[in-house]
Order: sequence, then C-alpha cells, then structure tokens
Amino acid sequence: MKIKVTQEKLSKALNNVSRVAIGKVTLPILNNVLIRVDNKKVSLVTTNLDMAIIDFLPVSSSEDGVITVPAKLLAEFVSNLPKGETIEISSKGAKVTISAGKYSSTINGVVADDFPELPEINEKTAVTYKISVDEFKNSVGQVIIASSNDLTRPALTGVYFNTIKDTLAIASTDGYRLAEKKLITGVKSEVKAIVPSNSLQEVLRSISDEMEEVEISFNEDLVRFRMGEVEIISKLIDASFPDYQKLIPKDNNIKVVLDREELMRVTRLAALFARSVGGSIICETVAPDIFSVKSIANEFGENDSKIETKVDKEGKVNLNSRFLIDALNALEEKELEFSFSDRIAPIIVKNKKNNNYTHIIMPLNS
Amino acid sequence: MKIKVTQEKLSKALNNVSRVAIGKVTLPILNNVLIRVDNKKVSLVTTNLDMAIIDFLPVSSSEDGVITVPAKLLAEFVSNLPKGETIEISSKGAKVTISAGKYSSTINGVVADDFPELPEINEKTAVTYKISVDEFKNSVGQVIIASSNDLTRPALTGVYFNTIKDTLAIASTDGYRLAEKKLITGVKSEVKAIVPSNSLQEVLRSISDEMEEVEISFNEDLVRFRMGEVEIISKLIDASFPDYQKLIPKDNNIKVVLDREELMRVTRLAALFARSVGGSIICETVAPDIFSVKSIANEFGENDSKIETKVDKEGKVNLNSRFLIDALNALEEKELEFSFSDRIAPIIVKNKKNNNYTHIIMPLNS
Repeated sequence: MKIKVTQEKLSKALNNVSRVAIGKVTLPILNNVLIRVDNKKVSLVTTNLDMAIIDFLPVSSSEDGVITVPAKLLAEFVSNLPKGETIEISSKGAKVTISAGKYSSTINGVVADDFPELPEINEKTAVTYKISVDEFKNSVGQVIIASSNDLTRPALTGVYFNTIKDTLAIASTDGYRLAEKKLITGVKSEVKAIVPSNSLQEVLRSISDEMEEVEISFNEDLVRFRMGEVEIISKLIDASFPDYQKLIPKDNNIKVVLDREELMRVTRLAALFARSVGGSIICETVAPDIFSVKSIANEFGENDSKIETKVDKEGKVNLNSRFLIDALNALEEKELEFSFSDRIAPIIVKNKKNNNYTHIIMPLNS
Repeated sequence: MKIKVTQEKLSKALNNVSRVAIGKVTLPILNNVLIRVDNKKVSLVTTNLDMAIIDFLPVSSSEDGVITVPAKLLAEFVSNLPKGETIEISSKGAKVTISAGKYSSTINGVVADDFPELPEINEKTAVTYKISVDEFKNSVGQVIIASSNDLTRPALTGVYFNTIKDTLAIASTDGYRLAEKKLITGVKSEVKAIVPSNSLQEVLRSISDEMEEVEISFNEDLVRFRMGEVEIISKLIDASFPDYQKLIPKDNNIKVVLDREELMRVTRLAALFARSVGGSIICETVAPDIFSVKSIANEFGENDSKIETKVDKEGKVNLNSRFLIDALNALEEKELEFSFSDRIAPIIVKNKKNNNYTHIIMPLNS
C-alpha cells in the first residue's frame, strides 16, 4: 500500500474520521483507521460498530493495498507536519512508514482482516432523499435537542424520520418534550426509521463549508449519509417510535405572541433562581397585556419579570426553564407563539409565521 | 446600602471577583461577595482565606452600608441584564434588591459580620516595586509553568520573588525543572518572598487591556498587587525556597543554536510516540551538523527527526518532552541556545540573544 497526498487534505480527512475511533478496550482495533487503496481510490474508514465513517481521499499517486493504523496517533502526527508538505504513506507487512520531507516515522499497524466493516446499503432496495446541507444541518439541530440519553428507552435516543402523506418529517422526544420539523415536501417514497442521535451528531460534525447536498438512503436496518467526500453509515434503532402526532395538543386556547430574545432573557434570569428547585419557573398570562415569568421563592431569593403583550385569556403553567431555553434557541424568527391551555396539557412554542417547526414541552407539577 | 451603576461596569467587576468565591462547604460565606459602600466609594470583595480580590467600582450614586450576597448568582444575574441599563442595588436587612428597568429580583444576602477579610498591608514597612502590566504578565507566565502542585512541598507551589544585588528576579521549580526571569534592575530595597502560584494566576486573570502598571508591595507575610481598579492581597508561603542559583549549571559544554519552531515541531512529533514511556525523548548532537530528536521505539512505532545546525561536540540526553515543550513555549526569540554536558546534568534553554530568562530541565534516566 502506498499513497502520496498533501498534508492539508490528509490531515482534514484523518481529523474527521478519527473522532469515531474511540478505543473500546475489548476490541482495540476500533482505535484504528483502515486505509484502503483500491484501483487508485483511497478510503479512510473508522467504526464504532454502530456506525462507520468513510472519507474518500483524492491522492496524487497510489499503490493498492489495505492496512489499519492507530487513528489518533496518525491524525496527530500528520497535523503536526508542516502545511504544504507532500506526505507519503507506505506499508510493508504491518509496518507503516509516514514520511514528509525530512520527517519520518514508523507506526506499528494491524492487518485489516479483523477490522469490523459495516455492511453496505443495497442500492436497489434503498429509499433515497436529497436535501441541501444547510437545511439539513439546521433542521436536525432543531430536533435532536429533544432526544433522550436514556438507553433503557432506545426509541427515544434517536431522531425519527417518517413520511406523513408526501412530507418527510423528523421528530425526537425524551418523554418531557418533543420537537418536530417538516423536512421535505413532495416526496414519493415512504420511510419510518429511527436514526441514532449519536450517528446524526457525527453527520453534523462532518459537514464542512464546501459541501452542498446530503443524500440520505435508507435500507431495512441501515441509513447512509453521503455528502462531499464523506460517507457515514449507521445502523438504525430497532424499536417503535411513539405515535407522536397524538401528543401534540390541538386546542391550546391561551395564545400569546412574544419577542424571542425578550422571553429568552427573562427565562434565563428566572432560571438562575430556580436552580435549587429543579429549574422550575412559572409562566403566567395576566389580561389585558402581561406575560410574566417568575421563579419560585427559595433559599437564594426570588425573581419576577414581565413582558408586555396582548393577553385574551388568563392562565398559569410551570415549566422546566432548561427545556424552554432549548426550545427558544431552536426557533428562528424574531417573534414566536407560545400557547397552552391549563397546568397539565403540553405547551407549544412555534415561530410566529413559519409553521414547519413545532416544539412542545410537558408542564411540571405545581 | 444603595448603589447605582451601569450594567457593563458592574458585570465586569462581578465576573472578575466571583472567580475567587469558591464555595467551601465548611464556610459558605466564602461563596459570597462583600459589597461595601463607604463614603461614596464602593468595593466588591471576595476571598478564599489565602487571598482576597477587591474591585473598586466607580458608581454614579450611593448610600453607605455593607452586605454580602452569593457572588456567582449576582454575577450571572447582572450579566444577563441588557447592556446599557442602569442597575440599582439596595439592601434592607439581609434582603438585597437588584433592579434594572423592568427587571427586578430579591436575593437573600448574609450580613457582613462573619465575612473573613484579610489584613491590610502596612504601608510604612512595605517594600514596593512597579512594573508595566505587559512585562509583568509575560514574565510571570514564563516562570509559573515550572512551579509545582505538590502541597507536601509548599515552597515549590509558589513563585519566588528575590533580589540579587540590584536585580529583582522571579523563579519557580518543581524539582524537575526551574525557570528564572530577571524582572527589574536597579532596585533599591530587598525582598525574599514566595507568592502562591494560585494567587498569581488570579492576578494574571484580573489584568485587562486598560491597565498599565502593576504595583507590588510586600510585607512580612503578605503581598498586594494593585493595577487599575483591582487589588489582590495574598498570604505569602511560609517556607524557604531552595538556593536555586546553585542548580543552574555553569559549564554546559555542548551548545547548539536551534530554530524555536523547528525544535517545537520535532519535539511534538516525538512526543506522540513517547506517550507510553512517560514522554521520554532522546536529544542528540552528531558532529558536524545534526541535532536529532528521537522517541524510543515502543508498541506504537518510532520516530526520528533531524535539525541541521553547527555541532562541535557530540552528546546525548533524555528529556521529558512535555517539559521541553513548556520551555519552548516560554521562549520568545526565533532562535534559542540549547546546552547540556552529559546524561546527568541539567540542560539549559535560553533565548539566543537576550539573557534575562533561563529555563533548566533535569534529564530523565536513560
């Protein structure tokens, strides 16, 4: 195996793939990056068994072969070499030599036989969607915040890709809040698949400025994201996602329009005092024109802020301030609609104009 | 107690002092900032018993009084208020009200009686030096890296301020390396005092752009740093600093001149391979023109880099790569002098031209 490539290209690709190479003590080869040269095409692959990331590397000269090398060591070595140098990597047995001008090193690699590669997507049966990188990144960011870390409820640790009529929507919930974004309209093929949030985070991290489009392909148990020179393949979560449409209230009859930044500020102020009570804050509408955010008095003191807005109907609801702050961060417009009905039903926050993003939060017991 | 002040000024001062308010569970009042208004002068004080930081705050209107309030809560509350607002803080008993436009909060304070203030410097007996903020910051940064965290050897956990003839020098050592900087020449009064590194770190953190000069005053057991509106008072370390001049070798007869960035790069490359052997790298001179840095072969592989330079005498020394990287970061010139004599005596690195900074490193056993 032999390749010749510039420091910049190699360093960027290695830094990208080496994030996934997290050493499981039980399977040390997962620390390694697989370098495959096949018919002048070079690919760098790392995997954590649940997902794999593949970076296709344009190189100026190559010789076929395959080897695995400790990913972080190689990435750090290459990133410390001078920019502009041409780097040559060659293997002889399991010894891998990296040289660049007057710098040279030998790394002990491991033959590729034991490297656990993920299966490939079957192109014939796959369902494929395309979306611009910016919209994908923004939308996944808006939804993934509501997903759970609780491994005992696997369905909630992912983002649910599902078609509703001709719309592809994505949704996440951790049982306390739920976020849904309508991603693409006018789609023809159906999908119902839960993509692990961890894999999606890697997709987001791998997106770089020069990428334009993401191609998303689903098989029965796999999903593949292709963008630019990078490909990420992930297993799907084998569980059923809750029928979340039922969870979105249809009749929240107390509605106020609020300035997003203003609500963010008063929520943050109230949150400071709410720390010792699990972040609980009280949102209240007072006719004809006050929306107030209070934190419950406690050992530190108390806080009460008011925002002027049109109020038709009075009501009160207790929320976790952290969840409200997350939701406000995910909205985009200057103004938002905040709606609720009583102390028990979920609240909804949405952009005032655009209706494609919905964020609901369960109230806290008061 | 009452003060009126702009959000910007108050937020900056609170963020500065609240760093020191680290809650010791045994003495919760150390979480608090003392706000003292005395004859129209306002001071904010926090302490961790070893040191205190005082920020003098220019305010537009005030009423005498003193109170203590949870420092981080107040700092975060104020930093979340809109810039440009005028903030009013007033106390009634232990209740402290903070209001700014339409925002208002009540924080439960604690009366100031139990707040443990540090003694003041006796101006009559104090020895005082003045130095520009830039030079002070740079010099302390060059020396403090060699100080120790080992609390069983208290003398080594500080920076030693000592006059040698008419020069004020500062030095630190952790037993494995030593850094010395000549700080001020032509001084008239003598000092021998060990300032805790932790206190000096706070002094460095408190330095801001608009400050020009640091005034350093020593008493028998205290030191005070004054710069701009900020004053830091610290206890001195009550221990004897080693007679460090004896530790600096006078006859290192193998000397090479090296490019600092080049040596940094090859040291970093070697360090990657040296991780499993405690960071040990081998530096070697080969006549007539090679300085080489190797890492000892180990499970990962091996590395060998060469720098061209004039070599009169051959030799070899094993060093901890982390210590060498720290030393190189502390040097300022493009070129440096690296000198050693054998495998046992300390090596010296210095700027090639300026002689006011000396960094020595003990070799590792080979």
